Amino acid sequence: MRYSVIFQGTAFTSKSSKEIQVIKDHLFCINEDGMIEKIVAPEEEEYDIILNQYGGTNNFHRLERGQYILPGFVDLHVHAPQWAQAGTALDIPLYDWLNTYTFPIESKFSDMNFAKEVYNDLVSTLLANGTTTALYFATVHKESSLLLAEICAEKGQRGLVGKVVMDDVEQNPEYYRDTNTATALEETEQFILAVKELAESTKQGVYPVVTPRFIPSCTDEALEGLGKLAAKYDTHVQSHCSESDWEHQFVKTRFQKNDAFALDGFGLLREKSVMAHCNFLDESDVELFIETGTAVCHCPISNAYFANSVLPVARLHAKGVEIGLGTDISGGFSPSLYDNIKQAVISSRMLEDGVNTTLPADIRGVKGSSITVNEAFFFATAGGGESLSLPIGRIQEKYTWDIQIIDTKVPSAKLPIYDDHEELLDIFQKMLYHARPENIREVWVQGKKVHKREGRLALIESGGL
Amino acid sequence: MRYSVIFQGTAFTSKSSKEIQVIKDHLFCINEDGMIEKIVAPEEEEYDIILNQYGGTNNFHRLERGQYILPGFVDLHVHAPQWAQAGTALDIPLYDWLNTYTFPIESKFSDMNFAKEVYNDLVSTLLANGTTTALYFATVHKESSLLLAEICAEKGQRGLVGKVVMDDVEQNPEYYRDTNTATALEETEQFILAVKELAESTKQGVYPVVTPRFIPSCTDEALEGLGKLAAKYDTHVQSHCSESDWEHQFVKTRFQKNDAFALDGFGLLREKSVMAHCNFLDESDVELFIETGTAVCHCPISNAYFANSVLPVARLHAKGVEIGLGTDISGGFSPSLYDNIKQAVISSRMLEDGVNTTLPADIRGVKGSSITVNEAFFFATAGGGESLSLPIGRIQEKYTWDIQIIDTKVPSAKLPIYDDHEELLDIFQKMLYHARPENIREVWVQGKKVHKREGRLALIESGGL
Repeated sequence: MRYSVIFQGTAFTSKSSKEIQVIKDHLFCINEDGMIEKIVAPEEEEYDIILNQYGGTNNFHRLERGQYILPGFVDLHVHAPQWAQAGTALDIPLYDWLNTYTFPIESKFSDMNFAKEVYNDLVSTLLANGTTTALYFATVHKESSLLLAEICAEKGQRGLVGKVVMDDVEQNPEYYRDTNTATALEETEQFILAVKELAESTKQGVYPVVTPRFIPSCTDEALEGLGKLAAKYDTHVQSHCSESDWEHQFVKTRFQKNDAFALDGFGLLREKSVMAHCNFLDESDVELFIETGTAVCHCPISNAYFANSVLPVARLHAKGVEIGLGTDISGGFSPSLYDNIKQAVISSRMLEDGVNTTLPADIRGVKGSSITVNEAFFFATAGGGESLSLPIGRIQEKYTWDIQIIDTKVPSAKLPIYDDHEELLDIFQKMLYHARPENIREVWVQGKKVHKREGRLALIESGGL
Repeated sequence: MRYSVIFQGTAFTSKSSKEIQVIKDHLFCINEDGMIEKIVAPEEEEYDIILNQYGGTNNFHRLERGQYILPGFVDLHVHAPQWAQAGTALDIPLYDWLNTYTFPIESKFSDMNFAKEVYNDLVSTLLANGTTTALYFATVHKESSLLLAEICAEKGQRGLVGKVVMDDVEQNPEYYRDTNTATALEETEQFILAVKELAESTKQGVYPVVTPRFIPSCTDEALEGLGKLAAKYDTHVQSHCSESDWEHQFVKTRFQKNDAFALDGFGLLREKSVMAHCNFLDESDVELFIETGTAVCHCPISNAYFANSVLPVARLHAKGVEIGLGTDISGGFSPSLYDNIKQAVISSRMLEDGVNTTLPADIRGVKGSSITVNEAFFFATAGGGESLSLPIGRIQEKYTWDIQIIDTKVPSAKLPIYDDHEELLDIFQKMLYHARPENIREVWVQGKKVHKREGRLALIESGGL
């Protein structure tokens, strides 16, 4: 057989950042490498030929009525160990949150059993939420960081994983930091090599990521060494950049320049770099991001708690910065990019219209800031793929078959659709606003099914029980 | 038997607006009227006596490990017919949204079959989301508005329902408005009488609500007549007040005073009045609200789309205004008060810290604006009860047994809890941030089970499928 899997159904993907393409009743032909080799329209001659050849075989999947294909989501910022505290202690400032809650939790990932339990749960949960690719911060521990990569490999998620570096003895607690700078760099290199070896037997790919936690937690030597490792092994790089008033100011005080330029000075802004938050980039920072190909990871839920502002995402994107979305577990409580898509739209409208009712309407907000749900979806899919420089996030030939199948008719989570002829673009919006893990019936990565939910007949009973 | 139902388990309720009371391993004794007659602590002598008497009987319910009791939610603002469009067309201004999308949908509720389908779905969906009491706008149609009240009665939800009045021929489309002012008032009175009759056979109560859509859609005569009907029958009243720049300005231009004073002039601000949104109340409006006992319904998700601002909820509540939460379906897309609790916290932080990164930190936001998740929970429960002047929203003696049972260990929706001794207040926060309908295993209203979900053993399968 020429194709290894064929799907028949309707898919939605980003045509551009603002426009959704509806691919109605097409055939999606997946090759042995898990790539979309061909998308065939009903009016094409080949359509019936393929149907005749594959219809009824085990490789043929026809979507049921009310089911639709979306690209899998790309989550560009997950602190994997923080899943254990997601949803707690969000009411305190970043600095206290890190020291009172987060560092103690992360330090527990020296325990491989604990790490295994939490990481297994997290990767399954993200898949169940439609996330097919995730860019992870693990912890300082080399062993359990590698375990996270192994769990991604095993469960079929495309995982990009970093062993976190935080070596500054002044800025990090004694119980949770790298032993010293030299060890931090050695272990990072060992980690890179181990993940590259793991990648050789992992179809969907796993990737090592150079991961200075953020400038405040690292020495100059560590930052410089990490920049060199990124160049030596051509890896992805991730960190935080200009997140809050506090961080932004801390870096300026230390280096007399903005976070972006400081990171760039250490060789950490590269085509494959993703910087989380970036709320306080100024115009020259933005140009530097564009020039180096560095992407911004927008984490709208987390920003409400820790970034003291809303990322001006419409402005950055219009200038040409690559943008993706991140949950930022657990600065963001939710494991779902659906929730972050919604919050990205909501936050952008708050920036557009302003928040303070005592100010006149014309100076309350920042005109030109709002984004549509289509744009937020773009960031969660195609934008994430561009940010990582990988062929993911679109339903398009030569892209990976990384998809989620949404069922709008699950009885216990039925979407409010009452018109059999409702516009497909309206149904698309209803899916983005209403779909929950219950509606995500199957998730495929690189042509392989990695998650499914049974129970389309689950019951809601009301009245007279 | 003295009690009709007994529960044994751990419950959470608001001790004050800022403090949560953990009622650990108590017995909750419900009488025949569906009221909490007694709450018994494990150290009380009566505890074992009651256990001996009721344990093992059909009336005895012991919560499983990982299950907790929360008060049912009180949703103070739902446009029931708009459930049919929830999640679409949120990207356009209020005025266009009403005329292009919302009025056409609402006009379809002259069709009783359509109304039955949508309203049945909506009430079941709200129950499945833990909402035990809802304050509804129906449509101008008397018959299908009454049908909504009947569906609430039948399914066991405490429904407060209004036939919407919108009689101004200049402001409303010909295809969707009251025939004339006299008819609007007559049909409202008939509706009030019909719901009061229905209430006589409805244990949990259903209530008629006087419902001018908002001032812009009503004539002076209609508003005056509705104020008189509210007084005559001592009903609840609901409307919108000072929602957006547009509405706020419209009323000022028409009456040379703010919305609040205009509504009050027609007798529409009463102890049992709930006004949605209220973002632009000034100090004298606030005093009028307090004086008349009028409550504010905060709709944080909807406000992001249509209110051009964030409600200064902390300030209003500190001054003594009664506050509840509303989904505002479908200005708010979500049927869940969990989502609105989260957004209330998030929006309040955006008001606190500000949104515009080009402004200095000290003038960017409005200090004193942020609320905690405990406060948002208070608004969704006890605050809603106070707003409606009903004994609901608290787990407390002499309150109704309106509760939801949350299961943190459902395999397909397991909460991230890995420590058997995790603080109960942390678990409470994780429930508010993570619970979905899958976790809401049972819902009881007035001592009667009205919703349950099966399938604690639902599967997530990951990897190697």
